Amino acid sequence: MIVEVLAVGTEMLLGQIVNTNAAEIGGRLADAGLDHHHQSVVGDNLDRIVAAIRHAATRADVLIVTGGIGPTQDDLTREAIAAAAGVGLVFDEAYAAELEERFAQRGRQMPESNLRQAHRPQGADVIPNPRGTAPGLRTKVGRMWVFAVPGVPAEMLPMVDEHIVPFLCGLEDLGPSVVLSRFIRTWGESESRIGEVLADLYEASDNPTLAFLASAAEIKIRLTAKAATRNEALDLIAPVEEQVRARLGSRVFGADEETVERILFDLLDKRGWTIATAESATGGMIAARLTAVPGASAYFRGSVVAYDVDVKRTVLDVPDVTIDEFGVVSEEVALAMAQGGAGRLGADVVIAVTGSAGPDEQERPVGTMIVAVRTPDGAAARTLRMPGDRERVRTYTTTAALHLARLAVQGAWWRDDRENIWVRR
Amino acid sequence: MIVEVLAVGTEMLLGQIVNTNAAEIGGRLADAGLDHHHQSVVGDNLDRIVAAIRHAATRADVLIVTGGIGPTQDDLTREAIAAAAGVGLVFDEAYAAELEERFAQRGRQMPESNLRQAHRPQGADVIPNPRGTAPGLRTKVGRMWVFAVPGVPAEMLPMVDEHIVPFLCGLEDLGPSVVLSRFIRTWGESESRIGEVLADLYEASDNPTLAFLASAAEIKIRLTAKAATRNEALDLIAPVEEQVRARLGSRVFGADEETVERILFDLLDKRGWTIATAESATGGMIAARLTAVPGASAYFRGSVVAYDVDVKRTVLDVPDVTIDEFGVVSEEVALAMAQGGAGRLGADVVIAVTGSAGPDEQERPVGTMIVAVRTPDGAAARTLRMPGDRERVRTYTTTAALHLARLAVQGAWWRDDRENIWVRR
Repeated sequence: MIVEVLAVGTEMLLGQIVNTNAAEIGGRLADAGLDHHHQSVVGDNLDRIVAAIRHAATRADVLIVTGGIGPTQDDLTREAIAAAAGVGLVFDEAYAAELEERFAQRGRQMPESNLRQAHRPQGADVIPNPRGTAPGLRTKVGRMWVFAVPGVPAEMLPMVDEHIVPFLCGLEDLGPSVVLSRFIRTWGESESRIGEVLADLYEASDNPTLAFLASAAEIKIRLTAKAATRNEALDLIAPVEEQVRARLGSRVFGADEETVERILFDLLDKRGWTIATAESATGGMIAARLTAVPGASAYFRGSVVAYDVDVKRTVLDVPDVTIDEFGVVSEEVALAMAQGGAGRLGADVVIAVTGSAGPDEQERPVGTMIVAVRTPDGAAARTLRMPGDRERVRTYTTTAALHLARLAVQGAWWRDDRENIWVRR
Repeated sequence: MIVEVLAVGTEMLLGQIVNTNAAEIGGRLADAGLDHHHQSVVGDNLDRIVAAIRHAATRADVLIVTGGIGPTQDDLTREAIAAAAGVGLVFDEAYAAELEERFAQRGRQMPESNLRQAHRPQGADVIPNPRGTAPGLRTKVGRMWVFAVPGVPAEMLPMVDEHIVPFLCGLEDLGPSVVLSRFIRTWGESESRIGEVLADLYEASDNPTLAFLASAAEIKIRLTAKAATRNEALDLIAPVEEQVRARLGSRVFGADEETVERILFDLLDKRGWTIATAESATGGMIAARLTAVPGASAYFRGSVVAYDVDVKRTVLDVPDVTIDEFGVVSEEVALAMAQGGAGRLGADVVIAVTGSAGPDEQERPVGTMIVAVRTPDGAAARTLRMPGDRERVRTYTTTAALHLARLAVQGAWWRDDRENIWVRR
């Protein structure tokens, strides 16, 4: 089965946004073992969208169209699919009523133009969109299945994951009936070094295949197996996963959906501890990540973002003498912030960050970021040197801080494999 | 002149890398006033590359092919162009010698496979590549110009900038030479309502064209004009922008790169005020957005993330009686958090948020989010009802809170066009 992806939107042609959707969908099709030979982009122009759909029908079994299904006049995907299929648009009274009800629940009147979204090519089925007002569509153009999904990734990806891929896997002639991916999560080693350590496995292993995925300072190793059943796929993956884990050792912290936040909360749960943050250069990003997890309130007490030095003094009780002697960007101040945060916020564990995130230097060179973690068992600080711009420095430091807290709560205080680590108990 | 972009590489189809090259080239074509209607991606497969080149020749005057010109067996762009043009490959002895010389200068022997790069379609000219070993190519397939450039952005972009765009601009029948976009930024109205208000403009205006772009609760209206010069393009945009602004009134808050954070800081600068946040349900996200702006330290003092109710009491000094009488998710508590934050953090302006972000309900229905803003001029709270999941509720509330603070600092306290707004002075 050959699947093609068509992205609709002039903003991509003008270079105003990058078509990340095609890559996201491509990755998912690969995971599912579906063939994928073409991706294309066309602007908000009816004739060109119709031509692109018809051209896809000459070479693909399935077409996924992203974008162009919103409420405004430049949203032309519905009309284009109908024209390519040679059918008319029909109006879905029930969906229109549902839309009106959604607006009413928020105490707002629905703008008339939203009714565009209740139109669909004759014979098309709806794919629900719980995260937005534009429903997805599933229909046929000739013998080719066509799916229309929103261009907004947060609305589009769940529809691909929850509807389109399972639907396609349910169609016949798919070959092996299960394609299963397992993700081994690592932190603390570069992608190229991990690639080197696993190079022979990467070459030798056809089923499962290996792939390396980097995101915000973590590297995931994806193992993808094809088999007749789920259990057979798991059996294929198990020995390779064992090899990967043996070679990477403590760099591996979890698998699949085990995020560092989730693991940290589980560890806190076992100890009966609460957590808080005291942040300067990360400006609340660590707190925001922790509170993004549903149920965070069982563990997370709060945070003091002490951006101004006065706030470090008055709210986090960092002694003047510590600031004067060591400077704001110092391990001593980070440790004092953690200690002060514990008292002020009534938390057992505190993650503290101070640093120089750029673009202007603050006391120490840009990219010098200091993380301290305090638990009832002790406290430690580490000085990190982060490359890249302000956004990257802050994001990577946020991830690093969560991992250092995970290790500290585990009692696996940071090993002295770098010279700039010290532990105070 | 219509220019098309074809990216060659299986890694894009598998989702392992994102095709940023297409966006980069698209932006440059727009700047140069060149029409650009299609972008596509095809894998490292000779037949499919040839078919893609031939299909482009049916609709474009120029094709830029990125990738597939390296030294390995899966680099097939040279062969594909020759096949599409119906010519053979010739071996360039001089270039082969030059390559060998380059390796010799670095004290290395040239791997044999590099000689692939000395082959080119008969009649093709070389575009020098000072940053790598793969030369670019310029030739014709039928009446269509074809350029081949490397997939590595650092090698590709200088060749586009220094060779391809100037070459195309030097060809005849170029038409308008500048394409200029201006973005009008709005908040507080739905995309569909904005589409309605501007419907006739959208229909009537061909140059500039209008488009609507939604991102994290803001809607941007893009005006794109084509003209002979930059000033002429600006002159075309000006009257349409005036119309858009007149119709949308206070919904418009800025243009182009004027983000709400940047505008808020500028307003604070004029008043000589500092800012802080007191966050519960947003968990530090507002602080993180404010501190993402370089230079935030001139205005931003810090934040208290009061996730646990104890922290609201002890650090933000929210009176027990207020919590007991109104509940944690109330306008009264949000106002008290803002007031307490001002004292504790020493800030003139405080944004406070409390709410029920889900998935579990907290006192009020999921999506009930309350924003309070306190300035030296007064304080106000607003109850928002946000649709969607936890992530979306928190992201949209963060944007809303920044806008409500912008309005408050402007002295444009929130108008009572919704019943649930009240202002305390």
